[in-house]
Amino acid sequence: MKRVKVRKGDNVYEGIEIPSVDEKYLVLKLDNGYNIAFRRNEIKVDIIGEFEKKSKKIEKKEARYRKELRDVSIIGTGGTIASKIDYTTGAVYPAFSPEELEKMVPEIFELANIYPREVLQILSENMNIEKWKRVGNAVIEEINKDRSIVIAHGTDTMHYTASFLSFTLKNLSLPVVLTGSQRSSDRPSSDSRMNLFCSVKFATTDYNKVVICMHGTMEDTFCYVHKGVKVRKNHTSRRDAFQSVNTKPVAKVYYNGEIEFFEDMPAKHEKRAYFDDKIEEKIFLLKVFPNIAHEILDFLIDQKYRGIVLEGTGLGHTPSILYNTIKRGIDEGVTFCMTSQCINGRVNMNVYQTGRKLMELGVIPCKDMLPEVCYTKMMHVLGHARESDEIRKLMRTNIAGEIIEDTVIL
Amino acid sequence: MKRVKVRKGDNVYEGIEIPSVDEKYLVLKLDNGYNIAFRRNEIKVDIIGEFEKKSKKIEKKEARYRKELRDVSIIGTGGTIASKIDYTTGAVYPAFSPEELEKMVPEIFELANIYPREVLQILSENMNIEKWKRVGNAVIEEINKDRSIVIAHGTDTMHYTASFLSFTLKNLSLPVVLTGSQRSSDRPSSDSRMNLFCSVKFATTDYNKVVICMHGTMEDTFCYVHKGVKVRKNHTSRRDAFQSVNTKPVAKVYYNGEIEFFEDMPAKHEKRAYFDDKIEEKIFLLKVFPNIAHEILDFLIDQKYRGIVLEGTGLGHTPSILYNTIKRGIDEGVTFCMTSQCINGRVNMNVYQTGRKLMELGVIPCKDMLPEVCYTKMMHVLGHARESDEIRKLMRTNIAGEIIEDTVIL
Repeated sequence: MKRVKVRKGDNVYEGIEIPSVDEKYLVLKLDNGYNIAFRRNEIKVDIIGEFEKKSKKIEKKEARYRKELRDVSIIGTGGTIASKIDYTTGAVYPAFSPEELEKMVPEIFELANIYPREVLQILSENMNIEKWKRVGNAVIEEINKDRSIVIAHGTDTMHYTASFLSFTLKNLSLPVVLTGSQRSSDRPSSDSRMNLFCSVKFATTDYNKVVICMHGTMEDTFCYVHKGVKVRKNHTSRRDAFQSVNTKPVAKVYYNGEIEFFEDMPAKHEKRAYFDDKIEEKIFLLKVFPNIAHEILDFLIDQKYRGIVLEGTGLGHTPSILYNTIKRGIDEGVTFCMTSQCINGRVNMNVYQTGRKLMELGVIPCKDMLPEVCYTKMMHVLGHARESDEIRKLMRTNIAGEIIEDTVIL
Repeated sequence: MKRVKVRKGDNVYEGIEIPSVDEKYLVLKLDNGYNIAFRRNEIKVDIIGEFEKKSKKIEKKEARYRKELRDVSIIGTGGTIASKIDYTTGAVYPAFSPEELEKMVPEIFELANIYPREVLQILSENMNIEKWKRVGNAVIEEINKDRSIVIAHGTDTMHYTASFLSFTLKNLSLPVVLTGSQRSSDRPSSDSRMNLFCSVKFATTDYNKVVICMHGTMEDTFCYVHKGVKVRKNHTSRRDAFQSVNTKPVAKVYYNGEIEFFEDMPAKHEKRAYFDDKIEEKIFLLKVFPNIAHEILDFLIDQKYRGIVLEGTGLGHTPSILYNTIKRGIDEGVTFCMTSQCINGRVNMNVYQTGRKLMELGVIPCKDMLPEVCYTKMMHVLGHARESDEIRKLMRTNIAGEIIEDTVIL
């Protein structure tokens, strides 16, 4: 590959030209790791040298057990944190071997005794219930060896997985920390190194819940730790894409290893941890929008979905054209839960006649739960309860910190 | 109604007790207009007086034409901005008569010659294409009388409507400003007064595009004016729920009438404005999530949907289990557009193999377009184009400011 200087108007960019999918564009990898694409007809290009990949000298560390450190299992599932760029196509592909951890982030071996374990090798858009079960069972096996857990996960669906595990991992005695990377680990701008460092550090605490630990800002200064049921990926590409919604983060972990907690340590569990695999799989998450037709709901009912999470508008509404079908579904035993596509705030179906009507039909208002969280919670709740009163009660009761009660109605 | 003092623990609240839907709760309207609900078994209540509704003395203004002012038509569609509380049920119901404007916000009559016109009386969750057409046609009638437009709209779907109108109102010579209210106008905490004031003020400028004008903060200090294709309701109840996404607002309108523009005035149109009602109605907006089954897509294709907006994960992905059905749809002439459920950021399907695969199938990556905007844009584009190449080109070309090009790919 060639090192080039690109002139566009008054600006000059320098970097490595990498293969482009579209020959109309020149793609430049800058020294800070970012890529820029230019229309070839708008630029002037000077070749200034050949690019040679630097081979970093890696000092091999011996994985020696140190009694004074906690044990942390790093569970690999794939995703960008375990990915490399394919320079022939310019695309990123998964390529994780647990041993590479030591090359990538040698400093975590100072924080804990590290046990890498690869459970899956997928991009996280392909995460599903069967794979969640494999992860859940692996977590329990490791936890029962007294190891805290770090799960390296693709960022696309990390918050769905964190929420699912929050409801299904019971009696956790140690932290389960999900982390990932928005830039692949062989890019200089990768966030994987600090994310892994902070995640392992947090895993050595007594915060025995499922959390997500990712960059707190664009800088390599600290990570935020978010409750697994109160977090969302709110940006496609920024390092600080993950944000706590309707609450503050659990803690800040600085890159020097200091931890600042924003809340008290949860109570300890005396009973043995287990993975609760009683899951209702037929749940649908449906975003409501103007002109949505009732036929889609009829179809879901015909397909024997047992639960439907409505991502309603505003305080929790749907077009009234859906009411009859919702009634039909509820008559046939389908559970309907209401959340809001506004993301921030809480459902309140008492304010408008339309919300009250939906509640009369039997739709369950799900307070300040994120739609994605409500979806995974329904899988868990409908795996256990069949009676509508019990389902309603469980959906509106805090199981894993997913609900923050609020006395202010409006 | 009774004025009461409520003690809960060490806290004391004073206000008017208003009827509650659930007798287990006492609902208190505080003097600042907010309502609080208390569990009756957790509080002590003292009645301290009877509540009498203050009858404000309204000075009737004569709607007199003033030549030096611009003409502004206020189009009523319903929603909270035109709502009142029903004190017997505690619910809010629509109750708008154009004349009430003068009682509510007499100061707007100092800003412009006001022409109120009620087009709809609905809560905005019931907004749909037929109603959008009525609004669009009414806007053009008023614009062609040389009147700027303020549309009073429910907040649930205001951003969908703003986006729809942005694509379908052509050659606008004057501003079209949508506004609404998060609190009904007979509450002391209502935001409707300042929102209407700032909207009318902005309507008197030369910014000839569709915008949303709503509270910029929780305070009554200023409104932000957002592009109709770059804005979203991001909170269920806060006054500052509407936010510009992936761009900054157009302007700030202070409650004293000052306007601070953040961009240049758009070019003028010489041609006559019109409402372009060529709309493809069979468009579906589908949120993708882990475990989504391909049957739902098969159903939408069977139902003859012509366009499907995928609200994908991350940079624009779906589970690979959907690929075959997407291929089937594209083979049958269905257009698939990709947006991201992350909301912030932009789709980039070149980064991962999975994104590249979706592009090979023919899915159109929709840059930094919001899913809701992509949905209304597809209605417009598929109403005009039938050839897949033309559709692709139009979807990826800026029509109303919905795309912000960016040379940084990742």
